[in-house]
Amino acid sequence: METHSIGIIMNGVTGRMGMNQHLIRSLLAIREQGGVKLANGDVIMPEPTLMGRNKDKLWALSEAHGCLPWSTDLDVLLADEHNKIYFDAQTTDRHFPCIKQAIEAGKHIYSEKPVAPRVEEAMELYRLAEAKGVKHGVVQDKLWLPGLLKLKYLIDTGFFGDILSVRGEFGYWVFTGEHTPLQRPSWNYRQADGGGIIIDMLCHWRYVVDNLFGNVTSVSCLGANHIKKRWDERGKPYDADSDDAAYATFLTDQGVVCHFNSSWCVRVRRDDLLTLQVDGTKGSAVAGLRDCVVQHDSATPKPVWNPDIPSPIDYWAGWTPMPNTRPYDNAFKAQWELFLKHIVADEPFRWSLKEGAKGVQLAELGLKSWADRAWMDVPEL
Amino acid sequence: METHSIGIIMNGVTGRMGMNQHLIRSLLAIREQGGVKLANGDVIMPEPTLMGRNKDKLWALSEAHGCLPWSTDLDVLLADEHNKIYFDAQTTDRHFPCIKQAIEAGKHIYSEKPVAPRVEEAMELYRLAEAKGVKHGVVQDKLWLPGLLKLKYLIDTGFFGDILSVRGEFGYWVFTGEHTPLQRPSWNYRQADGGGIIIDMLCHWRYVVDNLFGNVTSVSCLGANHIKKRWDERGKPYDADSDDAAYATFLTDQGVVCHFNSSWCVRVRRDDLLTLQVDGTKGSAVAGLRDCVVQHDSATPKPVWNPDIPSPIDYWAGWTPMPNTRPYDNAFKAQWELFLKHIVADEPFRWSLKEGAKGVQLAELGLKSWADRAWMDVPEL
Amino acid sequence: METHSIGIIMNGVTGRMGMNQHLIRSLLAIREQGGVKLANGDVIMPEPTLMGRNKDKLWALSEAHGCLPWSTDLDVLLADEHNKIYFDAQTTDRHFPCIKQAIEAGKHIYSEKPVAPRVEEAMELYRLAEAKGVKHGVVQDKLWLPGLLKLKYLIDTGFFGDILSVRGEFGYWVFTGEHTPLQRPSWNYRQADGGGIIIDMLCHWRYVVDNLFGNVTSVSCLGANHIKKRWDERGKPYDADSDDAAYATFLTDQGVVCHFNSSWCVRVRRDDLLTLQVDGTKGSAVAGLRDCVVQHDSATPKPVWNPDIPSPIDYWAGWTPMPNTRPYDNAFKAQWELFLKHIVADEPFRWSLKEGAKGVQLAELGLKSWADRAWMDVPEL
Amino acid sequence: METHSIGIIMNGVTGRMGMNQHLIRSLLAIREQGGVKLANGDVIMPEPTLMGRNKDKLWALSEAHGCLPWSTDLDVLLADEHNKIYFDAQTTDRHFPCIKQAIEAGKHIYSEKPVAPRVEEAMELYRLAEAKGVKHGVVQDKLWLPGLLKLKYLIDTGFFGDILSVRGEFGYWVFTGEHTPLQRPSWNYRQADGGGIIIDMLCHWRYVVDNLFGNVTSVSCLGANHIKKRWDERGKPYDADSDDAAYATFLTDQGVVCHFNSSWCVRVRRDDLLTLQVDGTKGSAVAGLRDCVVQHDSATPKPVWNPDIPSPIDYWAGWTPMPNTRPYDNAFKAQWELFLKHIVADEPFRWSLKEGAKGVQLAELGLKSWADRAWMDVPEL
Repeated sequence: METHSIGIIMNGVTGRMGMNQHLIRSLLAIREQGGVKLANGDVIMPEPTLMGRNKDKLWALSEAHGCLPWSTDLDVLLADEHNKIYFDAQTTDRHFPCIKQAIEAGKHIYSEKPVAPRVEEAMELYRLAEAKGVKHGVVQDKLWLPGLLKLKYLIDTGFFGDILSVRGEFGYWVFTGEHTPLQRPSWNYRQADGGGIIIDMLCHWRYVVDNLFGNVTSVSCLGANHIKKRWDERGKPYDADSDDAAYATFLTDQGVVCHFNSSWCVRVRRDDLLTLQVDGTKGSAVAGLRDCVVQHDSATPKPVWNPDIPSPIDYWAGWTPMPNTRPYDNAFKAQWELFLKHIVADEPFRWSLKEGAKGVQLAELGLKSWADRAWMDVPEL
Repeated sequence: METHSIGIIMNGVTGRMGMNQHLIRSLLAIREQGGVKLANGDVIMPEPTLMGRNKDKLWALSEAHGCLPWSTDLDVLLADEHNKIYFDAQTTDRHFPCIKQAIEAGKHIYSEKPVAPRVEEAMELYRLAEAKGVKHGVVQDKLWLPGLLKLKYLIDTGFFGDILSVRGEFGYWVFTGEHTPLQRPSWNYRQADGGGIIIDMLCHWRYVVDNLFGNVTSVSCLGANHIKKRWDERGKPYDADSDDAAYATFLTDQGVVCHFNSSWCVRVRRDDLLTLQVDGTKGSAVAGLRDCVVQHDSATPKPVWNPDIPSPIDYWAGWTPMPNTRPYDNAFKAQWELFLKHIVADEPFRWSLKEGAKGVQLAELGLKSWADRAWMDVPEL
Repeated sequence: METHSIGIIMNGVTGRMGMNQHLIRSLLAIREQGGVKLANGDVIMPEPTLMGRNKDKLWALSEAHGCLPWSTDLDVLLADEHNKIYFDAQTTDRHFPCIKQAIEAGKHIYSEKPVAPRVEEAMELYRLAEAKGVKHGVVQDKLWLPGLLKLKYLIDTGFFGDILSVRGEFGYWVFTGEHTPLQRPSWNYRQADGGGIIIDMLCHWRYVVDNLFGNVTSVSCLGANHIKKRWDERGKPYDADSDDAAYATFLTDQGVVCHFNSSWCVRVRRDDLLTLQVDGTKGSAVAGLRDCVVQHDSATPKPVWNPDIPSPIDYWAGWTPMPNTRPYDNAFKAQWELFLKHIVADEPFRWSLKEGAKGVQLAELGLKSWADRAWMDVPEL
Repeated sequence: METHSIGIIMNGVTGRMGMNQHLIRSLLAIREQGGVKLANGDVIMPEPTLMGRNKDKLWALSEAHGCLPWSTDLDVLLADEHNKIYFDAQTTDRHFPCIKQAIEAGKHIYSEKPVAPRVEEAMELYRLAEAKGVKHGVVQDKLWLPGLLKLKYLIDTGFFGDILSVRGEFGYWVFTGEHTPLQRPSWNYRQADGGGIIIDMLCHWRYVVDNLFGNVTSVSCLGANHIKKRWDERGKPYDADSDDAAYATFLTDQGVVCHFNSSWCVRVRRDDLLTLQVDGTKGSAVAGLRDCVVQHDSATPKPVWNPDIPSPIDYWAGWTPMPNTRPYDNAFKAQWELFLKHIVADEPFRWSLKEGAKGVQLAELGLKSWADRAWMDVPEL
């Protein structure tokens, strides 16, 4: 029984996502549970080093978690043989040069999405990593949401019969910041700073659809800039000029129609912030982040259109919640564990830089579809 | 106080819709309530004559409702001076010649939708009626659904602030007929017989959007033929080759994005068979056929994305049902009363043959958008 | 469009079952609805003649239903050419001679179950009818109970995956008659009068199992005479010496284990007077007389045994009621309509005298299993 | 007031049952509450020594509970005079030699069930213990389940009148391990490893029936191997060849018919994982693990069979839950306290090795009944 200590450079870990999801709820949680156990009894123990540009923030974060090592100098960290993995949670426009440098230093790569602002850059990173022979992966956390794992279970067990269509509804009301402070970073609503919901969310929808419903073959996307004035973190008004809603339809090579609405300008009357309704010949399901309800053919009512009377059918009653038949871990942590096993024990890991590039590709084509007012084919990368 | 008796030729009244909605729940209900009262105290009393091609059915329908007059001969009925209105509820392909003949005979025209299979024919009828100087209207019943009247109230009272987007979900599971008999006519699923959900439903969405959210200026529509084999009324399998779902997005001259899913292959997890979610800067509403719930800015929660725990917000709790502040009549009857007042007292009635033609136009452009994989502009008629 | 009038001799129609289920709710209901419609538009109109031994009862029954023809003389009725069908709802021991005579007179035969007290007699009737070339059928009403039709739907649509086992629970508390009058005939509890629950109910279970779960190949049955003293219709105590409960297990050629408890000495804590729980690899269902609830694999909870705390799982919550997707007719009437179509239009009808004999066979073998304390094979008839 | 410290060798305590139920929830809980109080004010204080074959596990278990003494050497522990009781929770095939050795060393014996794989061995242990003059007992925990204690109360107070029959339903859906990990050890489903539900559960049913409804005099049992392929703890498929369901009927010397279904292939639509329905002339009860509902004669409805309408009787409404009139301890702990009193104060304890042998006897005869397809008499031991 051996313990494999493995150094991880965590670049951009002072941001909200890097800190909460990747450091605290993933790597530190793995350390607390005694590492990741392999089939042969060995244990992988991640040893993170914090990296960023703001020394104060790094120092504070280190202090708060038992004096973790930290640095602002990528060269130094890459030179350290103990560091085997380079992880990047910086803003998108900073990924490319750092990941490239890390590949050259022979580090394995793990990156937040979107892996790069444009698909060519994302693919270049993929090719560089392959050429160098390092392993690589991209965060695709939604696949490990309990709700989506339940959907996966239904697909694997043939619950749906033939899957016909998927309705995705993502979003919630993001306050403008005028009377109620906004609950997302203000740059999300500025084009110049890389904002926009299409680039943010279509990366997600790509791997969700690819993994569950077949490879995306074409896309039609309408963006909208519904709210044009917002107030930033300091309460100052600014031009909110990026797309804050996207109405997108995807077709897959399995013939499934996937329509996804994504919006920061919608009030939520549904089971969860993200819901996926899947309809098949034999049954339907609506998954949220954690829960999933099903309606099998046998429980499907036969409605008759008669608006003169209140509906004799309670449309909510015919759905059954799926029970929790196993514990569900944090989605980010689940993917981290798989990545660490991939590095140490060479277990399979299909969520590579190329898969990450596919997400960027779909976002780009979505933007082009909006501009050209037409469907776009999605070529193989 | 005068009573205006007015003869109405009801062609195609032996069909399900003609019989239930137009004859029984509209005209006979109006007769039972003592006619339609005008502002000056006068009363309009409709006097329907049943018309169709099957004598047995006509006779039986007449018998069942107190021996109403009936005939299979349009010439005879048009020659009768007492008949002032020609109403057509036949299948779409039969409308054109009959309505044309009725216009020539100087009758006022009222017709079920789609008024014709192609927009040129629909517009020709409009031009003929205008040239002849007869009055005319097309059934647009959904506008008088209690749920949509409540939406109208919210719009008129400025509840929404600026309206940003509309999500329409229409549909339910239509059984294939294999194990459970289908609950809609089998021809709906055969192209050769005029089936298809696009021609059926986009006519509705046109007037709903035009009347509530601004004139439709462009459309993107994807049709789907999800289920390719069905069993007909006699239990025999057939090729179901028409579109049974439509994923359509409309833009309006008020800048509202309207996305409507229509499907006969979807299981219902929502408030009603048709729901319209309207989101505005100041509030949102979700209307069904009869009810409507609202969430004002003041009641809008501020969700935070954290899939590690069950949502601390109950997304259903923040919505309030609108009360019924007035009685709601059958939607078809409501429009009939307005049409009769239009005929007798010249009250305004904006749902003309031209408006009907607009519905056909949108369906045609929807089909073209599907074929061409591109957005279509909607020219003025 | 022709009307086929068809005379039916209804022997034993003054009994509870004959009167309520066969005369009033079946044949008279069919007359009221305008007969049975055939595919070609023709109509079958049954014309019942009441028959029995008590003139007063016959006269009263006739009067109550519009002066139906009646007689106590079988010879006369059989001689009448208009009578095409002989139906027998007498007590079991009277079936044989009357049915035999009717076969000889060339009448088609329809009979209540058990068709005879012993399997040889039941089979002799079958052979006589076949030799004479008359058509024949036996009442197997439970197959048309809405609850069992729903089960059939689940089986036909593959809901269960592989069916593993069936738990049948039939019965309720039949009062002894001492303080509360008994709600079943007292002869049911006297051996000498043909009482006993095994002969009564195993006939039903045979066709239920054969039709839904595979042909019965062996049986183990324990009878019990739980309550030995009862009070009859006049309040007089008597020896209740027949079996009033049966604990029977059947195996089928599809490898399904069917365990059925039948009892008149059980209080009901279940969904209905008869429930069938079917468990399969993919899902389970519990059907009652009219309703059926399902639990699909996807909704199956994962219980852990811990009696120290109240169960964290609500075992009722994971079941969904099947909706009514079509109207359900009276079960007896449904079978009558099929039989009439079989007679007039030669439509298929598999519930023949031979099928009736199978029911008697199972009851006989059940009794033998009880006596011999061993499993019995069920040979083919 | 004296304190009687009593050393207990706990063999096999690292297994799930030994650790949770016997060590933690029984003996450690007794220590925490200050021991077992006797009528004379004396106190019994159990002093457990952990025993097993895996030193790591023993050490960890000891550490976790305040450094309890532990050993892997039975000879050493038996040689220690302070140890008065030998308790065995190993797998069944290891009981015999260890218990025999402990008897020879003069220790009192307490053992998990089944006390041995075959009845002769179980009886030999009984005879050895009697010959040596040591005291002995076998775990029969279900007798102290709150639900069964409530049943006992009803029996003792004459609630049922004459008890006629008992319906036991035990079981739940054990996942195959293909898509959802199985929730029981995989060896339960392998014959070669001592798996099978008959040997597991009939031991329980023996003492439950003997203690509540009269001594079992005969048994008919059908085993079934419903699911033939399962996936083990490491996700590997294997042949599941042991019986996973048992359909058994027992007769008792009090004339009660007891039918028990036990299954790991059944979905639960009942009050609890184990339910016992008892029907008597004066009333009925359905007991679960903790709760029990009753229906007295006075509350018994009088149902009429009419499937044409929904049942006018709510069959659930006529049952009343029994209140908790006293605190219920963990069932294992309750029996431990009685056994300790039996050892120290010679209080009666009827659940001896002979009673344990009876359980094994019934399981053996159940298997033989299945093989021989016949009822088996249960001879006195």
